[in-house]
Amino acid sequence: MEQLKRSLSSGAPELIGKEVLLKGWVKTRRDHGKLIFFDLRDRGGIVQLVVNPKIAENTYKTALDIKPEFVIEIMGNVKARPSGTVNKDLPTGEIEIEVKDIKVIAKANPLPFDMGGEELNLELPTLLDNRSLTLRHPKVSAIFKVQETLVGSFRETLKKENFTEIFVPTLVPTATEGGAEVFPVDYYNHKAYLAQSPQMYKQIMTSIYERVFTIAHAYRAEPSVTTRHLSEYISLDAEFGFINSWKELMDMAEKIVLNMLEEVNSKNQNELRLFNTSVFQIKKKIPRIKMQEAQEIIFKRTKTDHRKEMDLDPFDEKEICKWAKEEYGAPFVFITHYPTKKRPFYTMPDSENPDYTLSFDLLGINEEWVTGSQRINDYNRLMENIVKWKNKPENFGIYLQAFSYGMPPEGGFAMGLERLTKDILGLSNIREASLFPRDMERVDERYSQVS
Amino acid sequence: MEQLKRSLSSGAPELIGKEVLLKGWVKTRRDHGKLIFFDLRDRGGIVQLVVNPKIAENTYKTALDIKPEFVIEIMGNVKARPSGTVNKDLPTGEIEIEVKDIKVIAKANPLPFDMGGEELNLELPTLLDNRSLTLRHPKVSAIFKVQETLVGSFRETLKKENFTEIFVPTLVPTATEGGAEVFPVDYYNHKAYLAQSPQMYKQIMTSIYERVFTIAHAYRAEPSVTTRHLSEYISLDAEFGFINSWKELMDMAEKIVLNMLEEVNSKNQNELRLFNTSVFQIKKKIPRIKMQEAQEIIFKRTKTDHRKEMDLDPFDEKEICKWAKEEYGAPFVFITHYPTKKRPFYTMPDSENPDYTLSFDLLGINEEWVTGSQRINDYNRLMENIVKWKNKPENFGIYLQAFSYGMPPEGGFAMGLERLTKDILGLSNIREASLFPRDMERVDERYSQVS
Repeated sequence: MEQLKRSLSSGAPELIGKEVLLKGWVKTRRDHGKLIFFDLRDRGGIVQLVVNPKIAENTYKTALDIKPEFVIEIMGNVKARPSGTVNKDLPTGEIEIEVKDIKVIAKANPLPFDMGGEELNLELPTLLDNRSLTLRHPKVSAIFKVQETLVGSFRETLKKENFTEIFVPTLVPTATEGGAEVFPVDYYNHKAYLAQSPQMYKQIMTSIYERVFTIAHAYRAEPSVTTRHLSEYISLDAEFGFINSWKELMDMAEKIVLNMLEEVNSKNQNELRLFNTSVFQIKKKIPRIKMQEAQEIIFKRTKTDHRKEMDLDPFDEKEICKWAKEEYGAPFVFITHYPTKKRPFYTMPDSENPDYTLSFDLLGINEEWVTGSQRINDYNRLMENIVKWKNKPENFGIYLQAFSYGMPPEGGFAMGLERLTKDILGLSNIREASLFPRDMERVDERYSQVS
Repeated sequence: MEQLKRSLSSGAPELIGKEVLLKGWVKTRRDHGKLIFFDLRDRGGIVQLVVNPKIAENTYKTALDIKPEFVIEIMGNVKARPSGTVNKDLPTGEIEIEVKDIKVIAKANPLPFDMGGEELNLELPTLLDNRSLTLRHPKVSAIFKVQETLVGSFRETLKKENFTEIFVPTLVPTATEGGAEVFPVDYYNHKAYLAQSPQMYKQIMTSIYERVFTIAHAYRAEPSVTTRHLSEYISLDAEFGFINSWKELMDMAEKIVLNMLEEVNSKNQNELRLFNTSVFQIKKKIPRIKMQEAQEIIFKRTKTDHRKEMDLDPFDEKEICKWAKEEYGAPFVFITHYPTKKRPFYTMPDSENPDYTLSFDLLGINEEWVTGSQRINDYNRLMENIVKWKNKPENFGIYLQAFSYGMPPEGGFAMGLERLTKDILGLSNIREASLFPRDMERVDERYSQVS
């Protein structure tokens, strides 16, 4: 068989009448009378194989023992399917491969559940207990193809805008952004911590390259299990200096998100189809309203009075996205001017009303997609705030150093990759958007199982 | 000033005769008689400013107080420099800006050392103690522009080859690749560890996408301080299935490295010039020799007999690179067939002589650049080796799961980003190639200072 060069399933429709060599995994097997049908999965997609004992008797005998997830190699002829049997849901649905020779490359254990259907229909713990298997399901693997597009688009947009990609450490000396929710590390004879974000480092780096971005691992030791938090996640971070107005930050965030949605729309139609969804077309400029205005709107719409609250809660976020969809055609809205007390110490207060900050969240599809702000770039003001927020300046050595030597007006934002992926595909739990999700109960295996 | 749109220094030579607005940091200040010269640094590069009291008296008065690393904004006219004063080493060396107006955006503390020279000439501890400042030096920031090119090229090559980019966790349940050199993490009420590599996960993912790559943080708790190890580093990892021969792995590694060098050559001439270096042009196919052949060659050349050793040491690596340079024109060589005992449990033994493996290192410029191998893809053989290597199969749950459901022949390789950066630029210590290097003695600040 090895004389032929391997083809991918996706290329087969172009090869009708030709002999091909294919390799991949058996996705499903169906026996119809004396015929055996396999769906073969490879990195190109899925294609149907037919084994007919009248055409290849020994091959048929081999095929009798082949079960789902076996790795096989086949040689056969590409044939147009009889018109009644065309499968319009499958990109290769107009052809099938008449198998002449078959070889088992690797066997598979019997599957613990059926993997052949369009849906997996498993409870989350089962999905994750069997992660190395369930990731093979097309509707699961599709999630991370969309994720790849999102990351690629983020990078591409920022590179075009003259941003430099940087790599910053995840091991940090102190828990600078809130003590309780960090993971301590035994670092030689000392304690170090896992970074909650690349915040400090990306800010420092604006004094080197002005405009930087990083795709960072971030860690949150939240002692609760929710559908929207992970203990380790991918943070897409950007930061840039010499802004004339903090509104430029929102402009950049909007550009990134719009490009991301467009890219998914143009590259991932196959994946979107599996989820029976499409991406939102944002045709108008995303509205920008102050948090207090949002609270007023919510009060008027729902009679729920959150106007004295210092932040929006999930109910508010959902409601204001609903409002945005009705008024602007898509559930996306910038909420600005969060209270100074509720934002990190480095957030720039609004000079017109210093109880509020030049900060924003971009809410998308019912929750926070992007969070950002202009930062305080004056050394003395920053130092003052570190103390006011009850942090110790000596824990901010290298960070304060950057500001002591001249920092321009700057700001930036961050977005959680898994959350965007989840919302775009309408997944019910963020764990589905992480290849190997970490939470309080699980690092690959569930703790209740191993301890 | 704000009516004008900001220009970058790099664009100024195109604007002779025009009025421009520039923003950036004062790199140097030189007073010549009544004239003040500044070198202004922005993300485009460096440009010379001249402040002449006869042209702008108040501006001159402001300029008198401006010191290195002040952030300033200036308005002025772009002028061709008098012919005798052209600076050929500077991309903007044919022009200067005659300043009409100047504004201080942020002041800077007095610098602890001169940052104006072409070289910094600092001891490593001083360089790193002042990292937020020293990164601003053009010869330091250049390092990470080269690094950005390397990563970009790695990604681009693999995307063209149909690889999928994945994100895998750094928090792992057990210390699977050697117990002593891992960092333990307090993970809720359990222990987790920082991954020494993304190895297990990238292997699993070949059963999903066949071809995957990841740019991962990797952690090594090596209890020693050398010039070539970091406690946290960036690992560029690729892995792919359905290989016909393990030699395809070397072909791919060679393609990646060649593209990387070419990209640096085409994108980073300015940076290379600062280091007075150029990248190696690899014109012949990189030689591939067995470890034992390398030992013979080294013995013949040096009379040092390492033929009974189970691995190459730094002396050997240097000598065999020297040999490759003499014989093939560049100090790059694949060393293959490392002893089975010296490689991880998952390495595929050579069926012709199972004491040696289908493994390779690509040595570049005197040390290991890439390390890789074909992996054992049969579940039973893998299980056997886990036990033989004195590991516990129960620590490999999700990994073994992938192999229990059918894995094709596969292999891959990894390369350390900081090491490549260091070697290409001829840096003397790998810490110089990490923005914020972590080692036994330092996480941003030196432990001897803070404890």
